[in-house]
Amino acid sequence: MTASSALPYQRLHVELDARRYPIHVGPGLLDDPDMLVPYLAGQQVMIVTSETVAPLYLERLKHALSGDGRDVREIVLPDGEHTKTLASVERIWDALLAAGFNRRCTLVALGGGVIGDMAGFAAACYQRGVAFVQVPTTLLSQVDSSVGGKTGVNHPRGKNMLGAFWQPRAVVIDTRTLTTLPARELSAGLAEVIKYGLIQDVDFIAWLEARMSALRALDADALTDAILRSCAIKAEIVAADETEQGQRALLNLGHTFGHAIESHQGYGNWLHGEAVGAGMLMAAALSQRLGWLEPDEVLRVEALIAHAGLPVTAPASMSGDDFLSIMRLDKKNIDARLRLVLLSRLGDACIHDATPSDMLDALLTDFPRR
Amino acid sequence: MTASSALPYQRLHVELDARRYPIHVGPGLLDDPDMLVPYLAGQQVMIVTSETVAPLYLERLKHALSGDGRDVREIVLPDGEHTKTLASVERIWDALLAAGFNRRCTLVALGGGVIGDMAGFAAACYQRGVAFVQVPTTLLSQVDSSVGGKTGVNHPRGKNMLGAFWQPRAVVIDTRTLTTLPARELSAGLAEVIKYGLIQDVDFIAWLEARMSALRALDADALTDAILRSCAIKAEIVAADETEQGQRALLNLGHTFGHAIESHQGYGNWLHGEAVGAGMLMAAALSQRLGWLEPDEVLRVEALIAHAGLPVTAPASMSGDDFLSIMRLDKKNIDARLRLVLLSRLGDACIHDATPSDMLDALLTDFPRR
Repeated sequence: MTASSALPYQRLHVELDARRYPIHVGPGLLDDPDMLVPYLAGQQVMIVTSETVAPLYLERLKHALSGDGRDVREIVLPDGEHTKTLASVERIWDALLAAGFNRRCTLVALGGGVIGDMAGFAAACYQRGVAFVQVPTTLLSQVDSSVGGKTGVNHPRGKNMLGAFWQPRAVVIDTRTLTTLPARELSAGLAEVIKYGLIQDVDFIAWLEARMSALRALDADALTDAILRSCAIKAEIVAADETEQGQRALLNLGHTFGHAIESHQGYGNWLHGEAVGAGMLMAAALSQRLGWLEPDEVLRVEALIAHAGLPVTAPASMSGDDFLSIMRLDKKNIDARLRLVLLSRLGDACIHDATPSDMLDALLTDFPRR
Repeated sequence: MTASSALPYQRLHVELDARRYPIHVGPGLLDDPDMLVPYLAGQQVMIVTSETVAPLYLERLKHALSGDGRDVREIVLPDGEHTKTLASVERIWDALLAAGFNRRCTLVALGGGVIGDMAGFAAACYQRGVAFVQVPTTLLSQVDSSVGGKTGVNHPRGKNMLGAFWQPRAVVIDTRTLTTLPARELSAGLAEVIKYGLIQDVDFIAWLEARMSALRALDADALTDAILRSCAIKAEIVAADETEQGQRALLNLGHTFGHAIESHQGYGNWLHGEAVGAGMLMAAALSQRLGWLEPDEVLRVEALIAHAGLPVTAPASMSGDDFLSIMRLDKKNIDARLRLVLLSRLGDACIHDATPSDMLDALLTDFPRR
């Protein structure tokens, strides 16, 4: 037993029948073989990481995974949403084949959501599917993309157009990795944390209002609690609806508006979480127009999003028509109807595909710009 | 109801829990909307076919799928195993995105195994998975690759290295498409038919010995019976072991030897079925050396393979060492052990990873060449 295995950590499980898997959360887990080695399929391990994360954590993770004759290799990819392409995933496959790795190998994603999405997709399709472990190092990937099994890449014609549902064997969240995360990216991750409160847990909204300053100051206990609560809500929703036929769509609160902002402004100029922050406020404002939220509830949402360091306005360069034309292409639409996730009340979301078009037009025109 | 729906056909189901799907077998099914339309997910349909098959059957299938306002399009790909690449699958994805197809579209594979494998992989990963229907037009794809959900493409470093398990919603087998199939490809398909007898059904071996001439003369009833019996055996094995953890590996009888021949000779010079034909005889001969088959049983296997028009010798240019070096790379090996599917008796196969290396060397050296 290593020293680090005596560290405190917490655990929850994602319940997916035969593919039940644990999420471990705590400080220092990256260095703990006991958190990682039990989830490897065999002796062949490929760490997939990025140029930013590799200098910080690659050698430590490699050290934790090595031993017992294991063949641990790495592939280091460039950073950024624009690298989330099929060509990057092909580089992972080429590396696996060049290493002679067989169907009992394991891919370990070390990095943010882009790395996790690409490594997961590579694992899903290498020899028709191999083992996969997530070690997410950004708050966004810890509370969102590392849970739920969505993997994939972008295509010039759209985000996440190619991919697979592929579950990890384990998610290992070392909260200390957040100490090296830029403040702007911490805020982007908080957008998704706030989302879980808005869609499912009004008590969590109140907890976040009280603890937001502690979270932004990287208080260890606050972070562990927020990550665990977020993962628990997401895990519950995913377990009920693995392939997004119904309830899972609620996780897209703010995302249809947010994707429109990201797409119009160019991916990477607005961070995903920033666009979701503004998008959630747009969803709340539309919910108010439908008579589902009170004005002071929308102000409460706005204050929480602002307190997290996120934008509460849309880009000045984006017209209502810009929003509409991009939103109509969203792959969450079924046939011709525009489906939106809205708030039926604080802490409760719904899917709505019958918003009057003049009401939506007015919201998109009137929503504050900056 | 159309005239063609009054035609006789037979049906069996592949039992995969929520993904149970039917296989329809009979003459003229290609023209019958009732065989096809109930399995479409929505209004958007993309037929994936090849340059050889398109002039023969594309317009007829399009006609059967059209109507009710459906948007039916096609993508026609070049023929041949060497086109089974990620680049070809990217062409399918580009066509789907250019058409604006959403996650409720359906891909329909019209052609042989290469088309089915690529269209299935494209369906598995387009927007993380869309509906898929198989209309196989070669005997090989009708009895083998269209059943079981294996999809994928080759990589310069190996066959079928990238792919997914993805089940069709239905398999529609029109036996009349075999009238346009070259005799050599019919024989290649018969290799897999014989395989089902050898691994699981000694009575089917006797039936094939009696009906082989009728099958090669395209006797309609004989073809329907042979296809149904083959699909039933494969469906039963696949249902018990969808992701190839155990019993499903028995379907690889002759394939480890056969892949070595294909790989050494260049894919396409030996047809897959031809290589499997010779490979099954090599497996039978090795089973005899292990004391599991009598010499006259091996002669019976040899006569049946020869009667199907398949080779019963290995390539003269291939040494025993050539076989060994390629077989050791086979992805069916787990860690370092060479796993072979052999015959414990006629009509019963087993997985064996403890063949004495001098016995295997002798078989590979002594097996007849031509």
